[in-house]
Amino acid sequence: MAAPRRLDDLDRLLALDPGGRGITRYATPGAALAAAHGLRRARRVVIVTGFCVPPGIPETDGPPGAAVLGRALHRLGAHVRYVTDASVRGSLAAALSALGEPPDVDVYHPGSEAARTLLARETPSHLIAIERPGRTATGEYLSARGESVAPWNSPLDELFVLAGKKARPQPRRSSNRPPAARAGHASSVTTFAVGDGGNEIGMGNVRPRLAREGALMARIASAVRVKYLVVAGVSNWGAYGIVAALSRLSGQMLLHGAAEERRLVEACVEAGAVDGITRRPEPTVDGLPLEAHAGFVALLGRAVLEPEDRRAQIRREVDRV
Amino acid sequence: MAAPRRLDDLDRLLALDPGGRGITRYATPGAALAAAHGLRRARRVVIVTGFCVPPGIPETDGPPGAAVLGRALHRLGAHVRYVTDASVRGSLAAALSALGEPPDVDVYHPGSEAARTLLARETPSHLIAIERPGRTATGEYLSARGESVAPWNSPLDELFVLAGKKARPQPRRSSNRPPAARAGHASSVTTFAVGDGGNEIGMGNVRPRLAREGALMARIASAVRVKYLVVAGVSNWGAYGIVAALSRLSGQMLLHGAAEERRLVEACVEAGAVDGITRRPEPTVDGLPLEAHAGFVALLGRAVLEPEDRRAQIRREVDRV
Repeated sequence: MAAPRRLDDLDRLLALDPGGRGITRYATPGAALAAAHGLRRARRVVIVTGFCVPPGIPETDGPPGAAVLGRALHRLGAHVRYVTDASVRGSLAAALSALGEPPDVDVYHPGSEAARTLLARETPSHLIAIERPGRTATGEYLSARGESVAPWNSPLDELFVLAGKKARPQPRRSSNRPPAARAGHASSVTTFAVGDGGNEIGMGNVRPRLAREGALMARIASAVRVKYLVVAGVSNWGAYGIVAALSRLSGQMLLHGAAEERRLVEACVEAGAVDGITRRPEPTVDGLPLEAHAGFVALLGRAVLEPEDRRAQIRREVDRV
Repeated sequence: MAAPRRLDDLDRLLALDPGGRGITRYATPGAALAAAHGLRRARRVVIVTGFCVPPGIPETDGPPGAAVLGRALHRLGAHVRYVTDASVRGSLAAALSALGEPPDVDVYHPGSEAARTLLARETPSHLIAIERPGRTATGEYLSARGESVAPWNSPLDELFVLAGKKARPQPRRSSNRPPAARAGHASSVTTFAVGDGGNEIGMGNVRPRLAREGALMARIASAVRVKYLVVAGVSNWGAYGIVAALSRLSGQMLLHGAAEERRLVEACVEAGAVDGITRRPEPTVDGLPLEAHAGFVALLGRAVLEPEDRRAQIRREVDRV
């Protein structure tokens, strides 16, 4: 009899679907580990996050994940910039402060050349979106219920659209231009995204399948693609999953703990965020109580180690007696 | 393209392997739900639990699971008896008290007719073992390290061995005896077990595969079989998984919450239990902090509902605004 395939607790945790939305059928085993491989030597990173469903009010899903992943990359030696809307800035800065990171967040000012200018200025090697609206095939930005959120979520996905375009082979006529002229090295930007609803940046990767789920999903699904997509039951969890994988690869514990998770979400709410589902200013995320998020982080922390390392750690614990 | 198979969060949670022991490759999807189907109309239940590795000192894995499952069956109308060793009685009674259940626990007094007498007296319809040593093929009771634990864990597995024997077709000559004479209806006893190590009652069901894992496992693996086996990364979690499934089937929330989980484990330790891995009198289970267990329960509570019911509950939450 063939040995049963060894699954990874990291994938099992990211496949949890507490909202019952069925979205984690798109959670591919190994996706977080693949993203971590793509990120572990990142040097210049731009992270975008923030999804406002009520006008101008961010949700608690997104900023915690962005801050935890940004801190991990910072610790691994990357230069990390955070970019979002003015209305999200406070919550993201609060999340960064709760983690002891500098609360420096850039506000995006949309305009015809805004994305190109940002890429030219920051020259990122890696672009990451955590729970950020992505345009549909018809260019709209829609909530899970199909309402437009374009007026209060600026088109930050343009960064990913540009990076995607530039990743294609350059036409011959431009081959003698210096690389710096090519929209800030956009051609060499690697893109990453985490989503949990279908309407976020990155979900373009699975859009053909999403579109077959029904009329509403076909309408809201984002067309914006990335190189590495991580789908999870809650977007914060997907970002934490990448950090767990980065911890495994680097041999450094980069993930936060359960107590920090509570502080993170509470800090976001104190700075004005609401639960994206209930829309209430309570320290919950996607309708789930803090216990569930703190518990997720505690279990994920265990999944950082490979099984044999988990056993070794337990043996060391025992020997400590 | 075929629709991806819909997995259940209940199975994903029971397949977590925080100890890195690889045991959850025996965690069969649907096992907890099958056990719940077998238990939901139980009338007379006997639950055994308690695994003492240091002489006379029970571990924190087992009594909480037994108490939570026993309370659930009690609420569903069953008469529930708890049977264990004298050394485990205090911890199990403390767990029951923490849940608001009567702390009545019977102590097993081994002897040649003890199991038969117990079955005749209690006439159980259902027998359940939660993290309870089961004899090996050579009749030993061994710890995960291969040390004998027989002197301080009485052979309660005899109940299951008898029930298994009686479940076989009766010889013709006994067919005219009244049912009550057949060792307390043992022939109609349905057996259940939860384990996380290989050496517990019930693991006989997967012993042939376990035995191929290595010399130590081949030696410690229990030969005692049951009708319904649930394997989990932590035995308490397996019992909680059955309760989550019972909740789904009955439409009643029978699972405890994160705060109760903390109280349960703390109550066991105050009554003398130790962590089965670290062997320290701390409120941890299998080397995992309370955060992980409380978090597991919070996430499992979410998995009680079918995905469509989870969505409906969230909609009701939103409408509450």
